[in-house]
Amino acid sequence: MMMIIRSITISAILLISVSLFFPNECLAQEKNGKATWIWYPGDYEIWLSNKMQARRTERGAFLPPLWRYYSPYALVTFKKDFELEQPDEISIFTEGDFKMQLDGEMVHGRPKKLQIPAGKHSIVVKLYNQEAVPTLFLNGEYLVTDNTWEVTFEDKEWIDETGKASDQSGTTWEAVGSWDFDSPDQLPSQFKLETTPQFAKAVKEVETGELVDFGKETFGYIRFHGLKGTGNISLYYGESEQEAMDSAFCETLDELDFDGSQDAEFTLENSMAFRYVQIQPSEGIQYDSVSMLYEYLPVTYHGAFKSSDALLNEIWDVSAYTMHLNTREFFLDGIKRDRWIWSGDAYQSYLMNYYLFFDNESVKRTLLALRGKEPVASHLNTIMDYSLYWFIGIYDYYLFSGDADFIKNFYPRMVSLMDFCLGRRNEEGMMQGLPGDWVFIDWADGLSKEGEVSFEQLLLARSLEAMAISAEIAGDLEGKGKYQNLADGLREKLFEVFWSDEKNALMHQRVDGEVRDNITRYANMFAIFFDYFTEEQKKAVKEHVLLNDNIQKITTPYMRFYELEALCAMGEQEFVLDEIRDYWGGMLDLGATSFWEKYDPKESGDEHLEMYGRPYGKSLCHAWGASPIYLFGKYYLGVKPTSPGYETYLIEPNLAGLEWMEGEVPTPHGNISLKISTKQIAVNAAGGNGILQFKSKSKPKCKTGEVVSLGNNTYQINISPGTQHTVDYRSN
Amino acid sequence: MMMIIRSITISAILLISVSLFFPNECLAQEKNGKATWIWYPGDYEIWLSNKMQARRTERGAFLPPLWRYYSPYALVTFKKDFELEQPDEISIFTEGDFKMQLDGEMVHGRPKKLQIPAGKHSIVVKLYNQEAVPTLFLNGEYLVTDNTWEVTFEDKEWIDETGKASDQSGTTWEAVGSWDFDSPDQLPSQFKLETTPQFAKAVKEVETGELVDFGKETFGYIRFHGLKGTGNISLYYGESEQEAMDSAFCETLDELDFDGSQDAEFTLENSMAFRYVQIQPSEGIQYDSVSMLYEYLPVTYHGAFKSSDALLNEIWDVSAYTMHLNTREFFLDGIKRDRWIWSGDAYQSYLMNYYLFFDNESVKRTLLALRGKEPVASHLNTIMDYSLYWFIGIYDYYLFSGDADFIKNFYPRMVSLMDFCLGRRNEEGMMQGLPGDWVFIDWADGLSKEGEVSFEQLLLARSLEAMAISAEIAGDLEGKGKYQNLADGLREKLFEVFWSDEKNALMHQRVDGEVRDNITRYANMFAIFFDYFTEEQKKAVKEHVLLNDNIQKITTPYMRFYELEALCAMGEQEFVLDEIRDYWGGMLDLGATSFWEKYDPKESGDEHLEMYGRPYGKSLCHAWGASPIYLFGKYYLGVKPTSPGYETYLIEPNLAGLEWMEGEVPTPHGNISLKISTKQIAVNAAGGNGILQFKSKSKPKCKTGEVVSLGNNTYQINISPGTQHTVDYRSN
Repeated sequence: MMMIIRSITISAILLISVSLFFPNECLAQEKNGKATWIWYPGDYEIWLSNKMQARRTERGAFLPPLWRYYSPYALVTFKKDFELEQPDEISIFTEGDFKMQLDGEMVHGRPKKLQIPAGKHSIVVKLYNQEAVPTLFLNGEYLVTDNTWEVTFEDKEWIDETGKASDQSGTTWEAVGSWDFDSPDQLPSQFKLETTPQFAKAVKEVETGELVDFGKETFGYIRFHGLKGTGNISLYYGESEQEAMDSAFCETLDELDFDGSQDAEFTLENSMAFRYVQIQPSEGIQYDSVSMLYEYLPVTYHGAFKSSDALLNEIWDVSAYTMHLNTREFFLDGIKRDRWIWSGDAYQSYLMNYYLFFDNESVKRTLLALRGKEPVASHLNTIMDYSLYWFIGIYDYYLFSGDADFIKNFYPRMVSLMDFCLGRRNEEGMMQGLPGDWVFIDWADGLSKEGEVSFEQLLLARSLEAMAISAEIAGDLEGKGKYQNLADGLREKLFEVFWSDEKNALMHQRVDGEVRDNITRYANMFAIFFDYFTEEQKKAVKEHVLLNDNIQKITTPYMRFYELEALCAMGEQEFVLDEIRDYWGGMLDLGATSFWEKYDPKESGDEHLEMYGRPYGKSLCHAWGASPIYLFGKYYLGVKPTSPGYETYLIEPNLAGLEWMEGEVPTPHGNISLKISTKQIAVNAAGGNGILQFKSKSKPKCKTGEVVSLGNNTYQINISPGTQHTVDYRSN
Repeated sequence: MMMIIRSITISAILLISVSLFFPNECLAQEKNGKATWIWYPGDYEIWLSNKMQARRTERGAFLPPLWRYYSPYALVTFKKDFELEQPDEISIFTEGDFKMQLDGEMVHGRPKKLQIPAGKHSIVVKLYNQEAVPTLFLNGEYLVTDNTWEVTFEDKEWIDETGKASDQSGTTWEAVGSWDFDSPDQLPSQFKLETTPQFAKAVKEVETGELVDFGKETFGYIRFHGLKGTGNISLYYGESEQEAMDSAFCETLDELDFDGSQDAEFTLENSMAFRYVQIQPSEGIQYDSVSMLYEYLPVTYHGAFKSSDALLNEIWDVSAYTMHLNTREFFLDGIKRDRWIWSGDAYQSYLMNYYLFFDNESVKRTLLALRGKEPVASHLNTIMDYSLYWFIGIYDYYLFSGDADFIKNFYPRMVSLMDFCLGRRNEEGMMQGLPGDWVFIDWADGLSKEGEVSFEQLLLARSLEAMAISAEIAGDLEGKGKYQNLADGLREKLFEVFWSDEKNALMHQRVDGEVRDNITRYANMFAIFFDYFTEEQKKAVKEHVLLNDNIQKITTPYMRFYELEALCAMGEQEFVLDEIRDYWGGMLDLGATSFWEKYDPKESGDEHLEMYGRPYGKSLCHAWGASPIYLFGKYYLGVKPTSPGYETYLIEPNLAGLEWMEGEVPTPHGNISLKISTKQIAVNAAGGNGILQFKSKSKPKCKTGEVVSLGNNTYQINISPGTQHTVDYRSN
């Protein structure tokens, strides 16, 4: 069997590619954009996440995720049609073996450079890489690889015996993926996070070894200096001193073996999370000192917060550090233990990120790694609610970033995951746990996941709303209608089935057609900031659920995140601020240098380190512990987008009893800077059309904008970009 | 976020695994089966085929397939429940990093050996390999990795906070895949075909270089002896002397560059197909001599054929060699050029294989590589008919091998491919080319692929019959009914629409509801050996189509294969034998040492080398050129299975004018040996229940079996296994 491939004809022109003469004025001419490494969209993210998540170890044992891994395509085809006003010489770099066609003619040999004459051209590059992701980097004066290229995993470009080109419409071309690999020697497959040396803050002897304290929670590679001799070294890591000292039960450890041939300066292969490390060398091994390479993702701290309360400032700073430690190749849940990507945890990281780094790339990488590829065979992380957070995360991402391209490019993967979810509804049109599903919701004693759980239906309804919006962006108007109808129907059913006028709450579940007499906070608090309640319902829920001690308390910071948001959304900023002082302040009092997976003031001593029945099971640096970043930015500085990409936004500052606060909230247009005291509000926004809304006992004065009164001591001022607005008012 | 994994509990027993004392009688006890490397079914075949097919080059350019590549899973989980009467020590070998659980307890560190006490156990091994296929080899006295293990790509084995194990039924466990990697150091990822040295038959000077002739078509790695100096060497390969001498247009070449550091004995990295190679060293490079490493798959020649006609014997021998050259990691179409796996070509190789090597592994590897994984996005090789041959190939494989496990294990992949095909039918329930589909059928001038082509519907009907049989084997009784109904309906429609009483033929196509006045041989000859015709229809088709010179002739050996089979199926063995003498004998007359992709007696000289508009485009060693192997075995020696795995079979010898013939036909039970002259038939069969059927002018005599007369000079004798049956008769 044989096909005649368009590329077979031998192109003499290209075999002897003559280097062409460029008169200076041509070289001076404006170039095409910046060249970057490109790949099949999502494949690099999948590959990198496979690698990263497989780095988890448990006391020296390899411990990869329990859910399915996806694989990149080993063979992909890139193409671009373009026109050159001038001849161009492009340099060719690939990860993988390649076949190149220019205007349908195969370029023979494996050229490093290619001359392209002026005029209209089409270039096709087929790339094969079985071990890593096939990636391409072309760099010319005018032609470069960038996001204008297309790619497919199933090129059907051939011509049959008759010489007729086959119908190309059978091939699905997609927009390429890329990140920031903008130079030919920055190979995507060689990506590593940045590192910088850090040194011990304290060292003390332990038996024949030592305990090294790096002063605060950190993440990186232990490094030995002046290492010599043969034998082995045991390292016991600890986020706490107790953990590092407990060689039998610390969560992570390393056993090193040296035959004497090692370098005097020796750095470990694996990075670990720790503050302390106990080092026990065997006889015959000596070293002068131990340091580490701190490993981190380079991101900019765009967000900022300061206030008249030093404790809150410290809480914000430690939250930001906690967030940064967990913002790596992808958003992690915690750095010591899981080192996996969990959709539910990542969802909160997206939100915190918008008020700190505003790093869209980290959000996109994480969304793509979580979603994987076709076919969908199970929920994200095997957890029903985690599939649904993924949709809502895309909705938020669009709202904050305004990045419609992401939705356009990945809408088909949204559809297939939603098809999977919709296919798992019962005859009532609701989702309940099926074999292989994990209905998580939250860690809470005796929390029932049985039957139709109102919380899951609520997330599904919101996800369907996200699908309707995405369908419109992707130009699928039929889909838009379909998803909107499903969303409306489910919202209606949600209240019809679960809302109790008697209990003033959404009930927790229905089992075998019977609504159980069981109220939890989950659906009720989400319905508040999803704005699913009427005003009366909101007030009723606040009183009968949120502020009702007879309803089982939220104990995980994971759900605490939403509970505090719900309270803020109802104007309880002062109450929430006290909660923050107690809860996060409590961890600081215990010497926390990053925020924990869980904190219970009633516990004492080593109890704080236990979790999951393991003495050091608790993560002392957990992304969800950083939620004050989000709360301060959105509900105290009070900034949030009201249309995609902050084209319009609202500022509703709330001092909540503070004398003053100031801060920065990042947007796609640049920062919104705020200084707020009880007497004055100063705002400076780089872009977008903002509305500043606040209460004042006196009529506010503002030279740079008209003050509109909404009555009830509430006023509005339009914030025009690029001008400093100063408002004199009286908050009490 | 965090799961409590059953494996977390630290197992002291296993950490300090005590080596147990074995009394001699235990060691003497019978062991479990042989250990072999295991993997996720189909993944190794996909990975290996990706590698192999990416080795095609076109004048030094990389030339991978145009259809999609699939990828193996990077993370899989193996498990086995077992009971040990005695304690066991297992050695652990993996390709990839692993996590092992014995009875739910994690084995810490990365052990090379594991002690398992006597009793009931369950072992789970999670294996990660991003670069190659995750493969596992465990070797104990009793516990070994073999085909009794199961594997999944989406383990959902975890327990939640409540300590309750999740519902396991969410995880799909499948039977593992394996081949013959039966020792720990035989790493699947390192697989290479066997090689053996071969030496030049003739060498002659060409300018400053030489032309080396290896005496016959071969495949392998050129090797230089006594190589020294710096510079480069150009190699121009040729299946013909003309090709090797034509450096500008030969299909394959190598350019080597030496800096002087090379070894004196230097073997090329890539194997090529050739008989001749022109070698042109630059100044500064010398070598003593050139040889090669012949590269081949070790298979046994179970089939054999000899007759009173020396030409036919040579045709069989050269066919067998042609077949062997194309039977490699997978069944290739041709060795010089494509080096890809084509479903249509492979289908014929399966059939030839049953009469030569009877190597089931090669059939299974090829079927799995072709099918790939989910989701199905295009036809096999993008060709509609090639998807359908795949189903029919499985049907044949089951008939010849009786291997029901293969169907049981891969039935889901049959279903998903068939769903894809059924989803592409038009409202008439027929398949016609859609965007991205290639309707191939055959290379033939002006052959129309438009509209509903009868040939494609015929293949679909047969495929649906294969699905019905497979569904029953896989225990999908609903599916069995569904597919049988679809098959029956389509067969009916096929004749209703395409059969013409007037033309005595199945018409070629229907376009926009109009049956075109166009007859081709394809559907008509397939309908004969598919047994879709009535006896009258058969006779009519034979006269009005097969033996009608006004119907466009078949010119490719690809379709010639089926045309000759159809004629044999109608008793035209003598006619076919003359055709074979002309066609294959014609190639031998022209010095062929392997059979060609195409042969046209009307051509002369270098015309024989041309194809696809390229002077040496034609493959001179093409699998489909070996069809005499199949025809001689099935229609002259006359052996074919009548129930799966040769449980029952038929022998209908046909001398077709030969004085005598003898041969071997392999079956799962061993060989069937035959000696047939005009006066005597001798049969010896290793197993199965056979019927020998033949014509005789006199009443046959047989001491070892009862001769039953069927009338019309036709007789039958039951062939019981293991006894030599000799029948005296008179064929004329």
